[in-house]
Amino acid sequence: MKRYKLVIEYEGSAYCGWQKQKKLPSIQQTLEAAIEKFSGEKVQVHAAGRTDAGVHALGQVVHFDFTNIGQHPPKTIMDAINFHLRRNRISVQSVAEVTEDFHARYSAKMRYYKYIILARMSPPVIDRHCWHVKAELSLDEIKRGAQYLIGTHDFSSFRAANCQSKSPIKTIEEISVEKKEQNIIIHIKAISFLHHMVRNIVGTLKLVGTGRIPAEAIEIILESKDRGKAGPTAPAQGLFFVKVDYSKK
Amino acid sequence: MKRYKLVIEYEGSAYCGWQKQKKLPSIQQTLEAAIEKFSGEKVQVHAAGRTDAGVHALGQVVHFDFTNIGQHPPKTIMDAINFHLRRNRISVQSVAEVTEDFHARYSAKMRYYKYIILARMSPPVIDRHCWHVKAELSLDEIKRGAQYLIGTHDFSSFRAANCQSKSPIKTIEEISVEKKEQNIIIHIKAISFLHHMVRNIVGTLKLVGTGRIPAEAIEIILESKDRGKAGPTAPAQGLFFVKVDYSKK
Repeated sequence: MKRYKLVIEYEGSAYCGWQKQKKLPSIQQTLEAAIEKFSGEKVQVHAAGRTDAGVHALGQVVHFDFTNIGQHPPKTIMDAINFHLRRNRISVQSVAEVTEDFHARYSAKMRYYKYIILARMSPPVIDRHCWHVKAELSLDEIKRGAQYLIGTHDFSSFRAANCQSKSPIKTIEEISVEKKEQNIIIHIKAISFLHHMVRNIVGTLKLVGTGRIPAEAIEIILESKDRGKAGPTAPAQGLFFVKVDYSKK
Repeated sequence: MKRYKLVIEYEGSAYCGWQKQKKLPSIQQTLEAAIEKFSGEKVQVHAAGRTDAGVHALGQVVHFDFTNIGQHPPKTIMDAINFHLRRNRISVQSVAEVTEDFHARYSAKMRYYKYIILARMSPPVIDRHCWHVKAELSLDEIKRGAQYLIGTHDFSSFRAANCQSKSPIKTIEEISVEKKEQNIIIHIKAISFLHHMVRNIVGTLKLVGTGRIPAEAIEIILESKDRGKAGPTAPAQGLFFVKVDYSKK
């Protein structure tokens, strides 16, 4: 048996998300089909993050095992999978052979997301992978609001109703907010996240940015442990799963 | 009569270019139709740069005149045109009333283009507005090659056969080359350009980047005044018309 680790990129809008679903195209099923086409082997692919419908990935990490077929050089595997993915919005960035104790999901030490808000009056026409907000947003206020989220908290206020995590306690290692031309980009780093956590945080920080709620409200919302107190879920198309770290930092 | 200056953004892949053509959708005709829809007036729109099929714009500048209808606040004009453009990949970024001596094309003092090359093995799936080159490119060599192009030269070697410019002599004020993750971005600034000049320059600098020709060859190619000596025309989808300056710098 040989285990392979892949770093993959995808544009999420055409997919129902990472996880396989009946009758809907998923990243997982599309990738597994491409692997089977070149190898003849039915494999199961495990991902570091099971991204939702419409969410993009720049550096999603996955692994799978080949059991029957001989060893292939990583470059051959990459080219072969990319060939079979050529009509899809998924591509393999790198392939490496790893030991059997590596697990894309359980070995992950840190996960990085970013969220892009386009704050301007006219709609995006070139790069549509963002949340178009027709309002001026205060970068300083969003930065100030984000500070309250750093550290270990009960994130129940930012948790989707259907979240399957055992505990609502998570640790945000870092949030940084930057402005690039008309985009406001929110970077969030944590070992793991609750379902919709990043999008619920962004939806709430947007209310801070427009002045609807003060930056201090973030602390009160956190302490309330009440999803109803936070802002709406920001749309999927602005969210990018950026990368995963497997070594302790 | 009222003259308006518009800054517009567009994703070029669905259009035959700026200029109106029979039976093909152009930026010009799409924009003129949107203006007519809200104003009832048939206008002619003039652009700073008549971009080719597939070329994008971040800050194309255009102007047109309203003759019959009363004065509208610029913000109303912008929202109205954007409303009628909503099913297109064109959007108006700003509108300003200008005096009648302003001409989007003839008043332009400086034009800025950028070209994005994605240098990696796997194809782009999130942002496809680039030239995908499956090779490593030397940033240093491209930078070195680009230096030979700065200044006033006869650019016949980088001129399309159907170019209508009276003279092949142009002045490149600045070329800068930067690397952002896997992208190599070439920025070029000049008062005006020959037809396909930027794309022919990029197609040739790519040969320098892969090592097919040395950086010094750029000087020899320039001096040859022979289109056959330069590299192939880089594809349209990597080219962006960035902005136009109307004041002397």
